[in-house]
Amino acid sequence: MPLLTGRADIDVVNWTEDRRCDRAWLLQNIPGASGLVVCFQDIVDREVVDVGGPNLRVVSTISVGYEHIDLDVMAERKIQVGYTPDILTDAVADSAVMLALMATRAAGQSYTFVKNNQWPSFNWTPFAFCGPQLSTTSFSPTRTVGFLGFGRIAHAVLARLAAFGITHCIYTPRPGAPPQTARDAHLQSKHNLTEVAPVDLPTLARRSDVLFVLAPGGPATHHLIDSAFLRQMKPSSVLVNNGRGSVVDSIALAQALKEGWIWGAGLDVVDEEAIPGGVTAEHPLVCEPRCVVLPHIGSAAQETREEMARLTARNVIAGVLGEELPVALDYSRLGSQV
Amino acid sequence: MPLLTGRADIDVVNWTEDRRCDRAWLLQNIPGASGLVVCFQDIVDREVVDVGGPNLRVVSTISVGYEHIDLDVMAERKIQVGYTPDILTDAVADSAVMLALMATRAAGQSYTFVKNNQWPSFNWTPFAFCGPQLSTTSFSPTRTVGFLGFGRIAHAVLARLAAFGITHCIYTPRPGAPPQTARDAHLQSKHNLTEVAPVDLPTLARRSDVLFVLAPGGPATHHLIDSAFLRQMKPSSVLVNNGRGSVVDSIALAQALKEGWIWGAGLDVVDEEAIPGGVTAEHPLVCEPRCVVLPHIGSAAQETREEMARLTARNVIAGVLGEELPVALDYSRLGSQV
Repeated sequence: MPLLTGRADIDVVNWTEDRRCDRAWLLQNIPGASGLVVCFQDIVDREVVDVGGPNLRVVSTISVGYEHIDLDVMAERKIQVGYTPDILTDAVADSAVMLALMATRAAGQSYTFVKNNQWPSFNWTPFAFCGPQLSTTSFSPTRTVGFLGFGRIAHAVLARLAAFGITHCIYTPRPGAPPQTARDAHLQSKHNLTEVAPVDLPTLARRSDVLFVLAPGGPATHHLIDSAFLRQMKPSSVLVNNGRGSVVDSIALAQALKEGWIWGAGLDVVDEEAIPGGVTAEHPLVCEPRCVVLPHIGSAAQETREEMARLTARNVIAGVLGEELPVALDYSRLGSQV
Repeated sequence: MPLLTGRADIDVVNWTEDRRCDRAWLLQNIPGASGLVVCFQDIVDREVVDVGGPNLRVVSTISVGYEHIDLDVMAERKIQVGYTPDILTDAVADSAVMLALMATRAAGQSYTFVKNNQWPSFNWTPFAFCGPQLSTTSFSPTRTVGFLGFGRIAHAVLARLAAFGITHCIYTPRPGAPPQTARDAHLQSKHNLTEVAPVDLPTLARRSDVLFVLAPGGPATHHLIDSAFLRQMKPSSVLVNNGRGSVVDSIALAQALKEGWIWGAGLDVVDEEAIPGGVTAEHPLVCEPRCVVLPHIGSAAQETREEMARLTARNVIAGVLGEELPVALDYSRLGSQV
């Protein structure tokens, strides 16, 4: 805010409540605006742009996703779109590792156990609250992590897990992407691993001890993790989704947990979160004791959100002044609606 | 169990319920036994040894701790004690990193939020559920971890955190211990850190972004983390205790959390757990929203507990047969009751 309100050449009209902006308020206040700052919950469609009028030249979103912005309309009206990729890589990688540890080590169950006043009657037994161990040890010396989606965040997760003694890293390449043999050899040597290699989906399912879902959303990845996939996973494996909820079939995953096809799951995103009010306490995954569900807080680290806010401000200021955005979404290269 | 029951030369009398052994059952069944296998909840005192009789030559505990065994009596009766140190280093280090992530990233609060059916009414705002970021980033490039107790587990935690971009490591040396300059230089270079250095307690409090308590219990460390210590910590810092509950004053920590002297805490041990029924849902730390309390599950990883069980069996078998234990507690070097 100081970056915006401190300027004499820009007038700021600001939704001041600490909650999602009312659409009616937005439509009432946008006419004549040169720039618009939004969160991922604010839908920027043709109506918003039409009501805004011809002055509108930039939409700056404080997010790495842009599913809430109609890119066809942006292209048609030549409105620049600013967003905040890359910045949140480390925060999301941290939360992915946290979810992997929470899912393997029964953190949700044991946290609830204490909260529910059950510690006083806890009879310790050697295998109480035991889950699979993320790190290797001298007596359990190999571990395979799988990645569905092997981009920047996956690489940051891999770097962290290498320190836990992970030995094998497998991933599914983007369809049609050329082999990245040199890149993989570099990662393998850098992190002192036994293997970094592309595999097909069934192999990813069969071999992963921990599977990280970090693929983009959209029709191409919709429910890639389904019943058939989950049935091939190991009973000791865990699934972590920090990417997009739509990649995982929630009903299939709940069945996999209930019937022990896999050991546990850690989710920061759930398919049904796209439906307003979709993830209730009765959601089948929220009900599964070995499933940790967090409310999409992957990038919710103070330092990261502050930097996202700074970049969002810099993007809208540049757009309003007719300058090049610090980080613009190149929607011409994305084709029609992703 | 197969290691024990598979032997023709050893009779096994086994408490078959999956809960703590009743003391009356123990006293009834121990007479004449050559070896005794216990968990840390089973008190092995003079009465047990006296009732056991002169055949008793080994006590094998499936734990790294031995506070439940009267070592003076063991020494007096020349009973060997087997235990399971080292094995659990990696499992405990994993859980320490998990607690550091959970404490910084509001995992307890956000997990409860979803469980309590609050996600459907969640109004996303840029700083909702934001906590301090464990990993460094280009825009927040330094992080200091502190260790109260800098032994094997601390080193394993440090190795993991180095991959999160931690830059500084400070610790309080054991009183009277010689400086470990070469060791520290080695750790600093191995993990590519800016600093690994011993400091005094006030400096540890003032500088740590994340403080790990991994010191042994006993009178020498009792309530070392008290009000005076906590008041010197940063408002953005978190405290993780995976060591012994007695090192941290629970009341002082609850006040520190309530009044914002520190940001959060992750505890696998709590002082009052030593009191039967001591950690209820009304315990001041369990009630603090930014405090994650787990029921002492630091080593509760399947692979680790299986290996602890194997070593416990090997220790008791060796002791019963009059052989040297694979891993014996050298209580003669510990002095009178530690």
